[in-house]
Amino acid sequence: MDRMSAAPPDPSPKRERLWRIIFLSDTPVGRAFDVVLLWLIALSVVTIILESVDEIRLPHANLFWTLEWIFTVLFTTEYLARLWSVRRPLRYALSFFGLLDLISILPAYLELLIPGTHYLMALRVLRLMRMFRVLKMAEYLGEASILLAALRASRRKITLFLTTVIGIVLVEGTVVYVLEHEANPDFANIPQAIYWAIVTITTVGYGDVAPITVPGKMMASIIMLTGFAIIAVPTGIVTSELGRAMGKPLAPRRCCNECGWE
Amino acid sequence: MDRMSAAPPDPSPKRERLWRIIFLSDTPVGRAFDVVLLWLIALSVVTIILESVDEIRLPHANLFWTLEWIFTVLFTTEYLARLWSVRRPLRYALSFFGLLDLISILPAYLELLIPGTHYLMALRVLRLMRMFRVLKMAEYLGEASILLAALRASRRKITLFLTTVIGIVLVEGTVVYVLEHEANPDFANIPQAIYWAIVTITTVGYGDVAPITVPGKMMASIIMLTGFAIIAVPTGIVTSELGRAMGKPLAPRRCCNECGWE
Amino acid sequence: MDRMSAAPPDPSPKRERLWRIIFLSDTPVGRAFDVVLLWLIALSVVTIILESVDEIRLPHANLFWTLEWIFTVLFTTEYLARLWSVRRPLRYALSFFGLLDLISILPAYLELLIPGTHYLMALRVLRLMRMFRVLKMAEYLGEASILLAALRASRRKITLFLTTVIGIVLVEGTVVYVLEHEANPDFANIPQAIYWAIVTITTVGYGDVAPITVPGKMMASIIMLTGFAIIAVPTGIVTSELGRAMGKPLAPRRCCNECGWE
Amino acid sequence: MDRMSAAPPDPSPKRERLWRIIFLSDTPVGRAFDVVLLWLIALSVVTIILESVDEIRLPHANLFWTLEWIFTVLFTTEYLARLWSVRRPLRYALSFFGLLDLISILPAYLELLIPGTHYLMALRVLRLMRMFRVLKMAEYLGEASILLAALRASRRKITLFLTTVIGIVLVEGTVVYVLEHEANPDFANIPQAIYWAIVTITTVGYGDVAPITVPGKMMASIIMLTGFAIIAVPTGIVTSELGRAMGKPLAPRRCCNECGWE
Repeated sequence: MDRMSAAPPDPSPKRERLWRIIFLSDTPVGRAFDVVLLWLIALSVVTIILESVDEIRLPHANLFWTLEWIFTVLFTTEYLARLWSVRRPLRYALSFFGLLDLISILPAYLELLIPGTHYLMALRVLRLMRMFRVLKMAEYLGEASILLAALRASRRKITLFLTTVIGIVLVEGTVVYVLEHEANPDFANIPQAIYWAIVTITTVGYGDVAPITVPGKMMASIIMLTGFAIIAVPTGIVTSELGRAMGKPLAPRRCCNECGWE
Repeated sequence: MDRMSAAPPDPSPKRERLWRIIFLSDTPVGRAFDVVLLWLIALSVVTIILESVDEIRLPHANLFWTLEWIFTVLFTTEYLARLWSVRRPLRYALSFFGLLDLISILPAYLELLIPGTHYLMALRVLRLMRMFRVLKMAEYLGEASILLAALRASRRKITLFLTTVIGIVLVEGTVVYVLEHEANPDFANIPQAIYWAIVTITTVGYGDVAPITVPGKMMASIIMLTGFAIIAVPTGIVTSELGRAMGKPLAPRRCCNECGWE
Repeated sequence: MDRMSAAPPDPSPKRERLWRIIFLSDTPVGRAFDVVLLWLIALSVVTIILESVDEIRLPHANLFWTLEWIFTVLFTTEYLARLWSVRRPLRYALSFFGLLDLISILPAYLELLIPGTHYLMALRVLRLMRMFRVLKMAEYLGEASILLAALRASRRKITLFLTTVIGIVLVEGTVVYVLEHEANPDFANIPQAIYWAIVTITTVGYGDVAPITVPGKMMASIIMLTGFAIIAVPTGIVTSELGRAMGKPLAPRRCCNECGWE
Repeated sequence: MDRMSAAPPDPSPKRERLWRIIFLSDTPVGRAFDVVLLWLIALSVVTIILESVDEIRLPHANLFWTLEWIFTVLFTTEYLARLWSVRRPLRYALSFFGLLDLISILPAYLELLIPGTHYLMALRVLRLMRMFRVLKMAEYLGEASILLAALRASRRKITLFLTTVIGIVLVEGTVVYVLEHEANPDFANIPQAIYWAIVTITTVGYGDVAPITVPGKMMASIIMLTGFAIIAVPTGIVTSELGRAMGKPLAPRRCCNECGWE
């Protein structure tokens, strides 16, 4: 998608060279650009993470302010260079990665107008997704494509499964709400009970919301034992698809061409 | 089952047309009816969920009262139309979906007689199960049938497994009760200890009940490590059956017809 | 094992008939005996469970005392009948099920000598394991044998895996103890830290013991992410063995006789 | 690696005999040495574990002091014997097991100079890893090699997966931090929020950090349901690789030589 929205510009060879460096990784300079960019994004993310810790930010407020603006200026320059070098700037600007690039610089400028929006800069973390494009060219390509193929093939099954789980969670949350809400302030309303049901069925089990009445605990026990069988389904789906996906590149010639399992 | 309990009525073409619209989805009007019905059920469920939140209900009590009665009237009309159009009304009324339809309108009327039964309306959530009948006709048909086939094939194994787990949970709960009940009020009785054992073996682990004595913690450690191996069983069952079920539609002709794995 | 330790007695046909009724289930009377026995065990277990609840026991102390002694007398009679009818009483008495039968009646008599030992009667729960022998004759036989074959085949792998997990838990517990024990009373000693590591690696996560220092939390994060990959191993083992075990009865003739997978 | 860094010394037959006893297990004496050493390591680890419990150490301080020095002297002798008998002492000293052997005796001597470093002796636990070398010669060899082969084959996929999970955890932690940090002191900074995200996505769920605002809980629910699908991936990877690894030694001759699945 990124590559499509960034078709090479026709006229100026200078713009095309810049485009090749910024958007592709097939030249030494282009690869270096990607690596430096990833490091800058990573450093900028680490800066935001450390800045959120009061004990670290307060004694070095100026340092963080400076670092933040250095990163903002660098990423703004990069964003403008992307816009200038690409053949269809609007298409890039509206693409997934284009919007991500914009989102990662806007909060710093918004902070000047509306104080407090500064924390949205943390979404810069998402830019690290570019890493996958760079990794693609590495030796992990084959492995990643198998994993992605298995996940893509399981997409519909997982959607169906998540729909079923949401339905189960609605029913279970409501039933436990009816059983518990009078005795237990943790189950004050149905959304809260649904939150509890999700925490339970995924076996996370924080314990911040837990049934206290006998019927509530009995229902919770049934839910947990049922969830035991349900949790097996996504694993089964991914495993089966992985087995299928892994079987393919490894068996160029085999006796049975039709069958997916081998 | 729904379709069987709703065999087309012979005489009146008007009733048959209504029956076709309400019970089947093979005509544009029938499909539209199903889609509108699902949206109404969903909206009604959202209304009940929001109504359970005090902060939302109290300022809009009248709105919720009105919405509730609009949904009740609509679903009552639908229920009567189903009863009238179907050839064997009693059979429909006693079928799984027929009882569900009744349960979803009764609480509103019961509220007039016995205040407080109103919350049972939340069971209306279960009517959303009709969604699966509509989805059946969509592209998810194949995927769903594979998942269902795998689950149906694992039915006995999962029953056997759940029986074993219930047995394990009884023994473990009792043993930890004997070890803990004098020192720890959380383990005041065996049902409570069984509840703890279920919370532990399913790896939910709320922490509302937890052992505090040294022998209790040692026993709990053994239970957790054992549970580690046990949790693998349902996943193994579903995965194996899924692999089997997935292998079938993909391999119409193969070299080995007898073997399930490929 | 039970059957072996209970070889039919030679001389008396009366004893042999009794033996056949008590130890086998191949006659209508023998099957009826097994079913009645299982119900009695189940009822006796339910009695013990209910008795442990103060709110239920205190108002019906006499009822529970009577029930307890009825069950004790019945099980004692059964135990003596087993001893008398079997050809080698000592061998039965020392077998797994023989010891279980003894353990389930002893606590009631011990209570007369040493008050308080009464709760050990709860181990009667274990007698329900006889259920599996009865179930064996039911339709679940095939399914159970597949599950058992898969578990038996994975036995060594699971032993190896549990050994590794115990090793990991020792190292992790010790390391987090060194990091946490000065700041956090929850990690007062290494056994406590190992208990925490087991709770964490099995993803139970009660939260009764949790790291509070920054290095402790970092180490815990590493442990959890590692545990993520580790939890996959037993599932993989059981799934693979199940696939193997399931493939066998379904493929009496196949093209490749040697390979386990199909 | 251990064996390579310990090539047999040429000249002295005495040194070679000692080397064979200490480093290999192919003679009765060598095997006895390994078994005794493992028992000593295990005893020393148990001593350290018990010593960490105040209730046990305080009344027997002298006993623990004596035991500690007996183990230290024994392990020092062993370390020197290893250094003397091996052909390339430096190579052994810098090998993984060589450093482990040093680390397990150093803390006792360091304690004399800097009090408090004594607890580092707990790392002696790691020496138990030698057990695997001894186990290799046992019947578990085949099983272990299958498990290791499956894990080694999944190495890249698991690395890729863990990288993705770390990325997800960064994004989720940051988003929930933005939603929660004003209302909830548990989410005081981003590292804390990332710790929460790891606790959640691995389904450990201590509950020491939990969202309290409505948007925070909604986001948490999405994270948990997503995690449900994600947790399936490592299991799928290991299962597929295990199936592959298990298929190999069992099928020396098969119809399709190329395909991994059978």
